[in-house]
Amino acid sequence: MLINKTYKRALRSVLGVLLVSVSWQTQALTCPQLTNVPLPPKCSSMDLESCNAAVQNIIPAAACAIFEVSPAANDATLVLRFTTLITNSWYDATAPFHPTAKGVYSDIARLPEPEDNRELNVALSYASHKVLSGLFPHLTPEWDSMLAEMGLDPHDLSEDTTTPIGIGNYAGRKVLEGRANDGMNQLGNEGGQLYHRLPYADYTDFKPANTAYKLRFPSKWQPAILMERPGVYRVQQFVTPQIALTRPYSYESPDEFTSPVPLKSKIWNYPSYVAQVNDVLNTSANLTDEQKMKAELFDMKIFSLGFAAVFASESQGLSLMDFIHYDFLTNMAAFDTAIAIWKEKRRHNSVRPFSAVRFIYKDEPVTAWGGVGKGTVNDLPASQWTSYLPVADHPEYPSASASFCAAHAETSRLFLPEGDVLGYTVPALAGSSQIEPGITPQNDLYLYFPTWTSFEEDCGNSRVWGGVHFEPSVPAGQAIGREIANRAYQFYLSKVAGQ
Amino acid sequence: MLINKTYKRALRSVLGVLLVSVSWQTQALTCPQLTNVPLPPKCSSMDLESCNAAVQNIIPAAACAIFEVSPAANDATLVLRFTTLITNSWYDATAPFHPTAKGVYSDIARLPEPEDNRELNVALSYASHKVLSGLFPHLTPEWDSMLAEMGLDPHDLSEDTTTPIGIGNYAGRKVLEGRANDGMNQLGNEGGQLYHRLPYADYTDFKPANTAYKLRFPSKWQPAILMERPGVYRVQQFVTPQIALTRPYSYESPDEFTSPVPLKSKIWNYPSYVAQVNDVLNTSANLTDEQKMKAELFDMKIFSLGFAAVFASESQGLSLMDFIHYDFLTNMAAFDTAIAIWKEKRRHNSVRPFSAVRFIYKDEPVTAWGGVGKGTVNDLPASQWTSYLPVADHPEYPSASASFCAAHAETSRLFLPEGDVLGYTVPALAGSSQIEPGITPQNDLYLYFPTWTSFEEDCGNSRVWGGVHFEPSVPAGQAIGREIANRAYQFYLSKVAGQ
Repeated sequence: MLINKTYKRALRSVLGVLLVSVSWQTQALTCPQLTNVPLPPKCSSMDLESCNAAVQNIIPAAACAIFEVSPAANDATLVLRFTTLITNSWYDATAPFHPTAKGVYSDIARLPEPEDNRELNVALSYASHKVLSGLFPHLTPEWDSMLAEMGLDPHDLSEDTTTPIGIGNYAGRKVLEGRANDGMNQLGNEGGQLYHRLPYADYTDFKPANTAYKLRFPSKWQPAILMERPGVYRVQQFVTPQIALTRPYSYESPDEFTSPVPLKSKIWNYPSYVAQVNDVLNTSANLTDEQKMKAELFDMKIFSLGFAAVFASESQGLSLMDFIHYDFLTNMAAFDTAIAIWKEKRRHNSVRPFSAVRFIYKDEPVTAWGGVGKGTVNDLPASQWTSYLPVADHPEYPSASASFCAAHAETSRLFLPEGDVLGYTVPALAGSSQIEPGITPQNDLYLYFPTWTSFEEDCGNSRVWGGVHFEPSVPAGQAIGREIANRAYQFYLSKVAGQ
Repeated sequence: MLINKTYKRALRSVLGVLLVSVSWQTQALTCPQLTNVPLPPKCSSMDLESCNAAVQNIIPAAACAIFEVSPAANDATLVLRFTTLITNSWYDATAPFHPTAKGVYSDIARLPEPEDNRELNVALSYASHKVLSGLFPHLTPEWDSMLAEMGLDPHDLSEDTTTPIGIGNYAGRKVLEGRANDGMNQLGNEGGQLYHRLPYADYTDFKPANTAYKLRFPSKWQPAILMERPGVYRVQQFVTPQIALTRPYSYESPDEFTSPVPLKSKIWNYPSYVAQVNDVLNTSANLTDEQKMKAELFDMKIFSLGFAAVFASESQGLSLMDFIHYDFLTNMAAFDTAIAIWKEKRRHNSVRPFSAVRFIYKDEPVTAWGGVGKGTVNDLPASQWTSYLPVADHPEYPSASASFCAAHAETSRLFLPEGDVLGYTVPALAGSSQIEPGITPQNDLYLYFPTWTSFEEDCGNSRVWGGVHFEPSVPAGQAIGREIANRAYQFYLSKVAGQ
């Protein structure tokens, strides 16, 4: 009973292994996050006059690339910079076709206002191709086929700004160049990094006050320990602290936006600190299915903010040009908000609920959510308390999500014809939870947002329900978001007026 | 030029998004690491008499699951526990068919020695099904089809130990149960964890002496900062320190295996510390293509140790029973080695080269490898020095890889008919590097290992070439690996003699 294998086969096997790296490089982009999403039909060469390439072609392709970098698309600073650069390129590439608008990074001679969407679609598609190729260079074949699917030649590199193709290429390149060294360290070259450059790496030397192992400073942020894979655990690092040094669009310096000191998170206000911890436990013990599903919805920015914007544009019948302006405005407002919020996060460097709960009650049993499918339990050692949402990798105060939703809602109120009216429903069918799949919600829910105000409020509160924020973080984030939204709107108005 | 989209479509989109979680759960297992590997044909119901289901069916399926947990299969402690439990179940499930052998976790009445491989293949396949279903329960459909492809019924749960199926099911269950609470914390329940259990999490409260941000203790291990995704960085945590408390197979306590104190890594031996750093830089500056490719080969344990074992078994014509004994012996020896090595890693808690290089030379320019495709450069700020291989998430001394290769080589010398003779060639074709794809090696290389001794030596040295170890780590690891290999062999001999 000898095994009949040959030396030759063993050799071939190992050869194959050593070649496999090559196949990794050329693997096609797949994004399971969009698998079951019934996307709109793509624009083709047949309907460029009437379709919306931004919504129908560019957003799905770009979302797929963003999911590769950020699987839940909740690395907000990175995602917002991607979406802002992409929508900026749409705005700049279509500005020459607008009666008065001027690009942010280019000033192209005005062309006649087009009869239909064709020129706009062509210009914004080439601009997107340039920006996406710059942001995700390893996916160049994807961006080429994105154009080819519309009958557009990805190898047409013309920068003749009397044609839509040339305008797109030129405007896209200018956005990319204008933003390459904006402070986000896209190229990994900041801080004198000559070799071993790492994209978007921190060059500001942020060091957490606490280790993941000991809360020496109970008012300060502590990085959490995350399960990377079963058995492999890693400690958080403050994500992109350098965005606080990044160039905003709509104001000079983030120093003009401040938030009150989060006094209840200060350990020297001991009774308030404990009361705040008790609020967290109380919320955790009384979590409803609706709160869980809203927490999950607003944790996924593309699916909450992004889809709400597309919904509002469509239900309010925005023209393609108006959609572009609206989408650039909302993304730019949120991006500029992130700059100020991160500056404040670094300044306050404030403790997250999980650290405070464990610090106050140690191994004492508490009543709280007990984990996937466990519901509320009353014998949870406080040292094992865990938030419903996974906790993000930045200090607690102010809430970034609350600020983004507020900026988004405020720009929507300012820009959209129907103002605060939204009328948006998100079905959350039984068992559709990502955190408790098959279990939550118990019954079909329909999350209804009649107004942008209700959307903004639920978004902010959902961070408290999710257990990742204390309550004062929400209004603090919202105030900055709304203030900057108004700046962003003024900036937009000046640009659209040709200034 | 209104956009003709309907409210209904927007609703459907969001619905789809909320359903997508379900599609994630049921996604089929894919492993790009095996895409181009020409695997042996699978055993089918037609050739169970003559094939080797362990090599042809179980290893490829299990490797795929292991790659999911450990994409480069270099999380050695976790991978070794998987492979040891799987091969243990083969050994235990075939012991009743051996003239004298007794299982480690079961003692089944002896059956007549079989005429061909059928009974052995059936028994080991059902045993594997049990163990794999326990280790990777979310992949149950994979394990079911693994059996079905051989014409075996995955729903046959018989434990009738007079039949191969019953023996397989019973022996597999006993291995799983015998190891469930062996100290590795597979279930996440160690340390009184009632809720939010995390598999294989540390329950021994290991805290690194240094933070990732400051080398306060220059002799001690410092966790490295890793790029998780562009823009998202994480800090290492010592992987599975609890394996030092895990029950070995072949000895009582790891305390009997010790290594000399790594004196050159002690900052109070300043001249030696600097000399050791200079050795690292010198190696980095003079890296050859052959060294790079050997470093990569031995960094992937499945492709180096695993494939060499299969090659040796096949080229030396081992019977199926002998292959099972050999594969269990080599894996168990390496697993028992890991227990002692991790105990020593924790005790010495010793600094890695990257920390020491940066500590000694700060921002001074040094001559060293400059990164992918850069070759050797002479203006690299020492603070930016990076090893060729990514540095693993555990203290430096002794070298775990050197110890595993030594254990593997020693058990091979003890067990195999040809002793130290190996004669193994691994082609490393031009550009096939995983770290410098398309660039390294410049020309086709054939890495040749005439003996297990040469394999063991190159493996150990490759950790120094890769820049992740100082030289004294290699003999320290090898000594423990060889010593434990002899214990493992004695344990094996006693089991095979029915003791």
